[in-house]
Amino acid sequence: MINGEMFIGGRAVKGSVGEVRGVDPATGETLEPAYAGATREQLDEACRLAWEAFDSYRAVEPELRAKFLDTIADNIVGLGEELVARTIAESGLPRPRVEGERGRTAGQLRLFAQVVREGRYVEARIDPAQPERKPLPRPDVRSRKIPLGPVAVFGASNFPLAFSVAGGDTASALAAGCPVVAKAHPAHPGTSELVGRAIRDAVEACGLPEGVFSLVFDSGYEIGQALIADPRIKAVGFTGSRRGGLALMKIAQARPEPIPVYAEMSSINPVLLFRGALEERGPQIAQAFVNSLMMGAGQFCTSPGLLLAIEGEGLDRFTAAAATALRETAPGTMLTPGIHQAYCAGVEALARHPKVDTVARGKAGHNYQGQAGLFSTGADAFLADAQLKEEVFGSSSLVVRCPDDAALAEVVESLEGQLTASLHIAEADHDDARRLLPVLERKVGRILVNGFGTGVEVTHAMVHGGPFPSTSDGRSTSVGSMAIDRFLRPVAYQDLPDDLLPPELRDSNPRRIDRLVDGKAMVVEAG
Amino acid sequence: MINGEMFIGGRAVKGSVGEVRGVDPATGETLEPAYAGATREQLDEACRLAWEAFDSYRAVEPELRAKFLDTIADNIVGLGEELVARTIAESGLPRPRVEGERGRTAGQLRLFAQVVREGRYVEARIDPAQPERKPLPRPDVRSRKIPLGPVAVFGASNFPLAFSVAGGDTASALAAGCPVVAKAHPAHPGTSELVGRAIRDAVEACGLPEGVFSLVFDSGYEIGQALIADPRIKAVGFTGSRRGGLALMKIAQARPEPIPVYAEMSSINPVLLFRGALEERGPQIAQAFVNSLMMGAGQFCTSPGLLLAIEGEGLDRFTAAAATALRETAPGTMLTPGIHQAYCAGVEALARHPKVDTVARGKAGHNYQGQAGLFSTGADAFLADAQLKEEVFGSSSLVVRCPDDAALAEVVESLEGQLTASLHIAEADHDDARRLLPVLERKVGRILVNGFGTGVEVTHAMVHGGPFPSTSDGRSTSVGSMAIDRFLRPVAYQDLPDDLLPPELRDSNPRRIDRLVDGKAMVVEAG
Repeated sequence: MINGEMFIGGRAVKGSVGEVRGVDPATGETLEPAYAGATREQLDEACRLAWEAFDSYRAVEPELRAKFLDTIADNIVGLGEELVARTIAESGLPRPRVEGERGRTAGQLRLFAQVVREGRYVEARIDPAQPERKPLPRPDVRSRKIPLGPVAVFGASNFPLAFSVAGGDTASALAAGCPVVAKAHPAHPGTSELVGRAIRDAVEACGLPEGVFSLVFDSGYEIGQALIADPRIKAVGFTGSRRGGLALMKIAQARPEPIPVYAEMSSINPVLLFRGALEERGPQIAQAFVNSLMMGAGQFCTSPGLLLAIEGEGLDRFTAAAATALRETAPGTMLTPGIHQAYCAGVEALARHPKVDTVARGKAGHNYQGQAGLFSTGADAFLADAQLKEEVFGSSSLVVRCPDDAALAEVVESLEGQLTASLHIAEADHDDARRLLPVLERKVGRILVNGFGTGVEVTHAMVHGGPFPSTSDGRSTSVGSMAIDRFLRPVAYQDLPDDLLPPELRDSNPRRIDRLVDGKAMVVEAG
Repeated sequence: MINGEMFIGGRAVKGSVGEVRGVDPATGETLEPAYAGATREQLDEACRLAWEAFDSYRAVEPELRAKFLDTIADNIVGLGEELVARTIAESGLPRPRVEGERGRTAGQLRLFAQVVREGRYVEARIDPAQPERKPLPRPDVRSRKIPLGPVAVFGASNFPLAFSVAGGDTASALAAGCPVVAKAHPAHPGTSELVGRAIRDAVEACGLPEGVFSLVFDSGYEIGQALIADPRIKAVGFTGSRRGGLALMKIAQARPEPIPVYAEMSSINPVLLFRGALEERGPQIAQAFVNSLMMGAGQFCTSPGLLLAIEGEGLDRFTAAAATALRETAPGTMLTPGIHQAYCAGVEALARHPKVDTVARGKAGHNYQGQAGLFSTGADAFLADAQLKEEVFGSSSLVVRCPDDAALAEVVESLEGQLTASLHIAEADHDDARRLLPVLERKVGRILVNGFGTGVEVTHAMVHGGPFPSTSDGRSTSVGSMAIDRFLRPVAYQDLPDDLLPPELRDSNPRRIDRLVDGKAMVVEAG
């Protein structure tokens, strides 16, 4: 079922512009078949179909929309070994990781199916009329959230399933009622085709309008740029580099009608090691740190790229233990030759930096394997050099030795927006941690204690986001059920007769959803 | 207490750049005293104080923050006749309108105090740990929303109280926990000073850090632009012209750290007149329409600037009745000479347009009074000319005669984003209305039946917003309790010990707020 095809609505078609080709980064081998980028006409057709599908798709019963999401999950799992093998071949990721990611991808589709069934996400509000109010009667005002319109989703390279064609952005947009036009990441075209077909088949099986989903390839940047500029597209989801995200934001803002861009871009995810914790269990933290750093060859958005601590014996012991563990690490195959090259350049720049010491390197590899690196510098050097605050995408991390609490606080205050910050603390460190929490809250989307950011739970409270430049829009998350909010906006209905109201707002509450009535939560009992 | 002063934190100071001067539009008389624009140093000081106040202000107990909002409301009402008289003098608005607007301003501050007390706005979510989960234990993840940071608020000319220094943007930002730096609208400096002092006094009375509020004047555009560009400002609230809003958006997007701009810009608020309603009560609707059009001399964001209907006797009778009513209308004094001039130019362009008929004009006035105007054109002309879709700010409205349902649908589909749409229907029109509702939902923030958009209730379900270009960000509202969402972002806390968690997320729920636990609403009973 890997035919070199993309999907313009229900039709499987081939592009004809340039070439998009998977490469097995474990071997350097070019993979069959060749894919070609979409033409402008094919893209136009995808956007037209998405626009035409919008009003009918957003009007379908919640149960059908939920079934659609569940069917996508079933279809992806049903692809079995063909999908797993192709994803491994195109990404170099190890089998357990790919299988786990497939489970997560299906799991988040099913979570959003549940969110759609429960209906709380429409945030139904009812303020009943007060005909007796003086000096003027109060009208009846109700509101719910409706979907924004067709959404452009850009697949990410580092999670070829969970942040790609049927990843979190697609799942949350479809759940919200938005058709999706996905732009495949060029590093995994075969994976994209398989997953794209799984969605297309679910659209058909559920009897939905074909424009609910399209998948296009792009041999360069033209199709992706034209997709964002298309007036029928009303929002964008993206996970990738800061440069890429900023470019998309610019196009979206320059449109006659600007649209929101949810770009997850870059993060170095500071890890704060407090005195008590280092004293109590420094070597264990060091081992856990190295494990986190090596996950997916360090190609996680939440990889621990920065360690902050006060100088002293505790930090020295930690660093020594981390160095010992790191030297034993086997290099991981990186996602693409380009990412490997950028990683090598980033590590080399650190190694050559006059104010940076190389603490340890992992085992050397071959081909596109990334050799882990642990580096160290002082707070002054870190504060003085913006380059040291940049993400090196891969298994590289920098220890910043701070002379005292004031320097540590200054370093934390100097950080850009981040996805996560981790605090390693013992009982004795609580007061020190409490002092830094307000600063960290301003800087990050998620604060962890005695853990690492790698591994993002898909739950209701999860926030995988953070202030700029970790994302383009810190008011949102791309993981967890809150992600659906990104693709919704509120509409109020004043004095509508009951039969013209949307079902969520009718007096009889036919969808049995939780609502806010006169500012009070009215919760529907289960059963 | 009108001294020509602004407030940099607690200090009342005078600016020294250029001149800002109120003009009584009823007489053309220049008002005393003269105000001067802030210096860049004064602005810098206001932003510095706001930034320094942020962490402590957002950490205060909800009850204190609520009391602060209530105190502002009390202080504004306590200004009594001095405020009312000055607002009338600076705006030309009639006394009942100014007194009503003062009540609304106090009312929305008190509504937000209640929102803060109830605490639901932080959207507390708790996903408890699952230590037994396979293959990996699930961590404890909790989230709440925190404020974005200091907010720049630009006062609007058309609601010198309710959308100005202590208006909805200020109330919602302060409620969210954001310090505010307000830029006074140059048309009502005395009103701004009085209200600014009321807020400053409330800051002092509540023992809050002085940087929680500052008020600056600007004799041109430099201070406003520098305010948005200041790195310590994290969001912008604005109500005004499309040109002004677009300019602010551009500055905000060009910052090294882009920030959200909530600009409410322009809207012509289509009114759809259905056949049955016209037949049943056309003349009554015409009278209600003229009443709505004349409110505040048509200077409402929600003024009915466009009437859409199918040609026929019903529409003819409506138009004739509206013309009769309109000819009797007394002209209202407009807010500023500039607004009056722009209104005259807009009306003149309509009157001279080769495809537009002048149906009726109101009574002529003197000085800066706006003579109402009702115009008429065909669907073809309206579809062909973007100029006819532009807002004429004031008591001017355009009837678009549609030959049939298809033309009406095409006209509705051609509209830009709007704040409101009104449908006038009888029982027999429900099916026709139902067909257009999905299109209207895509175009507007609020849909009304058998009413007009003027008069925006401040409630929980209200949406005063809409797709671009009615606002810069259709995902939000500037009126009603949902407005607080604009200044918040979510933060997740993973595996934090209870004593390090924010109170809203502790197991014991010390703030007694509604929370979402494992995706289920847990509502706290009153009492």
